[in-house]
Amino acid sequence: MAKTFVDISMSLDGFITGPNPSPEEGLGEGGERLHEWVVRLASWRERHGYEGGETGPDSDLFDEAFERIGAHVMGRRMFDDGEGPWGDEPPFHNPVFVVTHNPRETLVKEGGTTFTFVTEGVESAVEQAKQAAGEKDVSIAGGANVIQQALNAGLVDEMQIHLVPILLGDGIRLLDDLDAERIELEKTNVADSTGVTHLRFAVRR
Amino acid sequence: MAKTFVDISMSLDGFITGPNPSPEEGLGEGGERLHEWVVRLASWRERHGYEGGETGPDSDLFDEAFERIGAHVMGRRMFDDGEGPWGDEPPFHNPVFVVTHNPRETLVKEGGTTFTFVTEGVESAVEQAKQAAGEKDVSIAGGANVIQQALNAGLVDEMQIHLVPILLGDGIRLLDDLDAERIELEKTNVADSTGVTHLRFAVRR
Repeated sequence: MAKTFVDISMSLDGFITGPNPSPEEGLGEGGERLHEWVVRLASWRERHGYEGGETGPDSDLFDEAFERIGAHVMGRRMFDDGEGPWGDEPPFHNPVFVVTHNPRETLVKEGGTTFTFVTEGVESAVEQAKQAAGEKDVSIAGGANVIQQALNAGLVDEMQIHLVPILLGDGIRLLDDLDAERIELEKTNVADSTGVTHLRFAVRR
Repeated sequence: MAKTFVDISMSLDGFITGPNPSPEEGLGEGGERLHEWVVRLASWRERHGYEGGETGPDSDLFDEAFERIGAHVMGRRMFDDGEGPWGDEPPFHNPVFVVTHNPRETLVKEGGTTFTFVTEGVESAVEQAKQAAGEKDVSIAGGANVIQQALNAGLVDEMQIHLVPILLGDGIRLLDDLDAERIELEKTNVADSTGVTHLRFAVRR
């Protein structure tokens, strides 16, 4: 049975996007610093068509998180912001289920990525993604709003936060608007490396 | 020269106090869970007049943080909330400088704790605490507002956050209202234990 997981980089002050996002700075001012640790990895570069990069535990961890994915769930805004930049071959290579209010025909891209638009809410999107994932797992890719909805609805099994030792000061917080009393975390692993601390949790309702 | 440091327990969603603090629940609903890891330690229990408790790395770390303190800086609200519960022998055993708008005579308590009320702002309180600390260091004890003021004014040298794997959902966030562009963190140590992950940073302006 497919597990659902969140895997995301967060600043020490809790932001996954910095202040004032714009077409030039999609992650807001300073937000690119959240991903500096990942874009230099050999495994990330390979997936995105580049050569070289760092090998080691961080790169293995990225590979492992990627390999387990059989389908993605994402929010409408993340899709809207990404559709242009991702181009003809988006970096997902798996079915993606987009939670939206606007019905739209399924979009088939190169490299195995399809975008299916789900208007019945996050629970339905997760259910469809689990079906599509088969033996593999479902990544709740973001943004913050869809992740929060999924956490509040008890739809998340695991969460891995890559804690980046920076302050962004403002922007979009990952862990906001949560029904905290109903969400129990069990810390299952902590792995520290130069630029980031990887915190892994099992999530219980 | 005395260093200044912050040493505080924070939930994964960034809170150091939960929602709706009251006389019965000074740390808000669920807030006591932030300190479960510390109140069971032998070193904490000894300082607070109890026997027994856990020994080991967490207990050593608490001892180390306590031993280095020569003086404290705290905010007016933390003092007001604590004055009653702390009783005749507060657990500081060092000079405490309280940032406040209300002048008041210095209060001398048993066991080496004095409370000096500083009306000239956090910078003056830190300066006076450094003088009082001598060869030892200054703890910026809290609350969040005084810590934020000290971070924004470039008055903090080190920060140790004890990250507790719980969600509080609401309350008072530690890392809010910060002039993030002017504060640079360098992660200097990460130590994981059962109930908590200790994250240590050097703070640069």
